Amino acid sequence: MAGTVDDLTLTKSGGTLVEHVMAAIRHRIASRSLAPGGKLPSIRALAQTMQVSKSTVVEAYERLAAEGVIRSRPGSGFFSAAALAPLSLAEIAPRLDRAVDPFWVSRQSLEARREVLKPGCGWLPGAWMPEDEIRRALRGLARTKDPTGLTDYGTPLGLAPLRAFLSRRLAEQGVEAAPDGILLADSGTQAIDLVGRLLLQPGDTVLVDDPCYFNFLALLRAHQVTVVGVPFTPTGPDLSLFEQALAAHKPRLYITNSGLHNPTGAALSAVTAHRLLKLAEQYGLVVVEDDIFADFEHDPAPRLAALDGFERVVRIGSFSKTLSASFRCGYIAARPDWIDKLTDLRIAAGFSSHRLSEELVLAVLGSSGYRRHLDALRTRLAKSMASVVPRLQALGVTPWTEPKAGMFVWCRLPDDLDAAAVARHALNENVVLAPGNVFSAAQSARSFMRFNVAQCADERVFRELERAMRLAARG
Amino acid sequence: MAGTVDDLTLTKSGGTLVEHVMAAIRHRIASRSLAPGGKLPSIRALAQTMQVSKSTVVEAYERLAAEGVIRSRPGSGFFSAAALAPLSLAEIAPRLDRAVDPFWVSRQSLEARREVLKPGCGWLPGAWMPEDEIRRALRGLARTKDPTGLTDYGTPLGLAPLRAFLSRRLAEQGVEAAPDGILLADSGTQAIDLVGRLLLQPGDTVLVDDPCYFNFLALLRAHQVTVVGVPFTPTGPDLSLFEQALAAHKPRLYITNSGLHNPTGAALSAVTAHRLLKLAEQYGLVVVEDDIFADFEHDPAPRLAALDGFERVVRIGSFSKTLSASFRCGYIAARPDWIDKLTDLRIAAGFSSHRLSEELVLAVLGSSGYRRHLDALRTRLAKSMASVVPRLQALGVTPWTEPKAGMFVWCRLPDDLDAAAVARHALNENVVLAPGNVFSAAQSARSFMRFNVAQCADERVFRELERAMRLAARG
Repeated sequence: MAGTVDDLTLTKSGGTLVEHVMAAIRHRIASRSLAPGGKLPSIRALAQTMQVSKSTVVEAYERLAAEGVIRSRPGSGFFSAAALAPLSLAEIAPRLDRAVDPFWVSRQSLEARREVLKPGCGWLPGAWMPEDEIRRALRGLARTKDPTGLTDYGTPLGLAPLRAFLSRRLAEQGVEAAPDGILLADSGTQAIDLVGRLLLQPGDTVLVDDPCYFNFLALLRAHQVTVVGVPFTPTGPDLSLFEQALAAHKPRLYITNSGLHNPTGAALSAVTAHRLLKLAEQYGLVVVEDDIFADFEHDPAPRLAALDGFERVVRIGSFSKTLSASFRCGYIAARPDWIDKLTDLRIAAGFSSHRLSEELVLAVLGSSGYRRHLDALRTRLAKSMASVVPRLQALGVTPWTEPKAGMFVWCRLPDDLDAAAVARHALNENVVLAPGNVFSAAQSARSFMRFNVAQCADERVFRELERAMRLAARG
Repeated sequence: MAGTVDDLTLTKSGGTLVEHVMAAIRHRIASRSLAPGGKLPSIRALAQTMQVSKSTVVEAYERLAAEGVIRSRPGSGFFSAAALAPLSLAEIAPRLDRAVDPFWVSRQSLEARREVLKPGCGWLPGAWMPEDEIRRALRGLARTKDPTGLTDYGTPLGLAPLRAFLSRRLAEQGVEAAPDGILLADSGTQAIDLVGRLLLQPGDTVLVDDPCYFNFLALLRAHQVTVVGVPFTPTGPDLSLFEQALAAHKPRLYITNSGLHNPTGAALSAVTAHRLLKLAEQYGLVVVEDDIFADFEHDPAPRLAALDGFERVVRIGSFSKTLSASFRCGYIAARPDWIDKLTDLRIAAGFSSHRLSEELVLAVLGSSGYRRHLDALRTRLAKSMASVVPRLQALGVTPWTEPKAGMFVWCRLPDDLDAAAVARHALNENVVLAPGNVFSAAQSARSFMRFNVAQCADERVFRELERAMRLAARG
């Protein structure tokens, strides 16, 4: 047995081999390459990988188990301890052990129990949504004379009258898309994912804004591409750095929120939009314009799809932010040949669209109540913005720019505070915040935080933010 | 200018360079690597790729345009001609130009107008679905006291009471899955896609049955993996060939329909299931068991997940076949560490589940009417099977095996007829058939066809089948 010898052998880093193996496992857990509750490699496999004896791995695993870092399940092997306890069925408690990565805000927000406050989340309170119109649409569908909408698969492109409706709406924004140039998707996120599957290969490079919507980073990670962030200014990406990135990295795609930018609430200027498209043409770049916040705008900002006419722009939209996040529907408007390929991809990856969701979205969108709802929403958001920003400023939390509209304000914390530390302290008290670096490919937003003014009605938000900042300042 | 010289230069294959370029473009169109309506490479790009002069490419493009194979759009470049005409808004006519590939049946069936008969499609007529229960569920949701189900995102794993329900149902089948070991997906197809995204890398090898559900082939193509088909027998895959494939190709996954097999209607025997799992263990294979037809069974066949306990089996299910295809919901039951990673992937690729669909599925599943619906469905399917099979036999169309249950019967056409040719003739008369090779990775099912007995109530099915076979026999 080489175990005892191994155990005494010093590694280059100075520890014993057993400590070396322990450190490797700890690193895998910390870096999330081993998920909470995840199964560890078998003793034989790890011994082989790390070129140590099996008894060294046995010793390392036993010590980690004694420390509570991992657990043994007889007959099944060893598991990372974090999530071994069965999660509660009803709703899941905040997971303090979770790494502050691009999934942090989404999982903490989506998993949150009702008493949890979510100034960091990316959606409106349910009470702000058009509940009456939704109930009416459900009742209408319950008595529809055409039962195919209740039982049958959707068509490959998605519900034709909804595509016709979207085509008219896009035309109002100066975007020319025929109904058959629009593919409905199960969500805006799925729409972007499909575009990625069509246009990206592992190892490609994609440009995003820095900061950008964190789920772009999560999605691009799933596509195994290299992500390059271009610093964002209050009128769009910094174009000289954008061009440098184009020249240096030859990216295939640039993904951005055009109308209202997430997380900053800024909007593209006409000059930036025009120059950006010229650069895109020059460097053969495809631009994915995710216009999910379009309905929040007071004065429409320039749209890349309107300027470009789908030569190299793909337009994405969705209704999860203003209509309902419970029955979802996104869309892609793009070149006809891409739409055809995207349709095949969607069949491969999901077979058919969610016809009932499309029927409901169409019913609500077409109702007179929905336009009124949007008007009321914009006013309500503007009021919330006007009242929340001074409250944040009073705590030394400063807006980076004045948002054009919408629910987000992107702020710098005082005293170079670490926003991730602040967010962890707040989560302890059931407040989900959105620390800056989850939005930053380059981790350049350590002291920034995104606030959703619609989710800041409770006094406790400001109290807990102040407390969390105080605790973080102490280190 | 090297153009005229190029044009006269003979290539290795004997043609001129211009002909060589023309053949390459024709091949791209025929192989669908260039979609109908798809944009051709720019003249400069293709000249560079093919190492010919630009004038050679110009000449090739012009000749192809003269032939009508491609079209020029001033200012935009050249496009494959097939689908340039705008598609009709209302519903799309049969596309006779479409290649008979794994997308053939899905697109023809999903796009079909109402008067089109679909004995080749993979679902029941809408009138067979539990319409009353669905209307009741919609009305119930319209008056729900908890509006979060109408407006809010779902939780990361999906609706907890539905997962609890599924956990109990799986337990009845001997499959032990805790509610938190189940992740809801937007469809069974999305569920398989997520598993593929977790476990596969481009270039990996995946085993499927030959024949298998055609969308497995479409999905795996999207994952850029190598697909190896193992001949299927009436009791499961041929195990000696299965083992040969394991040894030769070291596949990462095997994807199969376990309960009732698509397209054959066969079911795994207990012996095959047990041996298959032993081989899987021996070769480190993960098995994806898509149990979408579970509710059609009279006597449950053995389930791999029941034997294996999620050591190396992933169980997929869905309700699109027996409840509704309009509001969709699938699920994945798997090892806890995989469920956690799959949840992250689902957030990245779709953000949240379709909560309203989950609420509706739960309401219908839990209704007493649904059990009665399933009983009635099984009886009705058995009757259809009993009446359709003799009608097919009278035309010389012979079942490969007697289906255990369900809607599919897999048949051999007489006289070695080419099923793809038969299907094309039938489509001309608005009948969508399912030719064998769309189910076969090795294209080994040229004379086979899948029939859906629930879609064969119209006499015209048999009349057009006979006519199409007669035309195909003439060549």
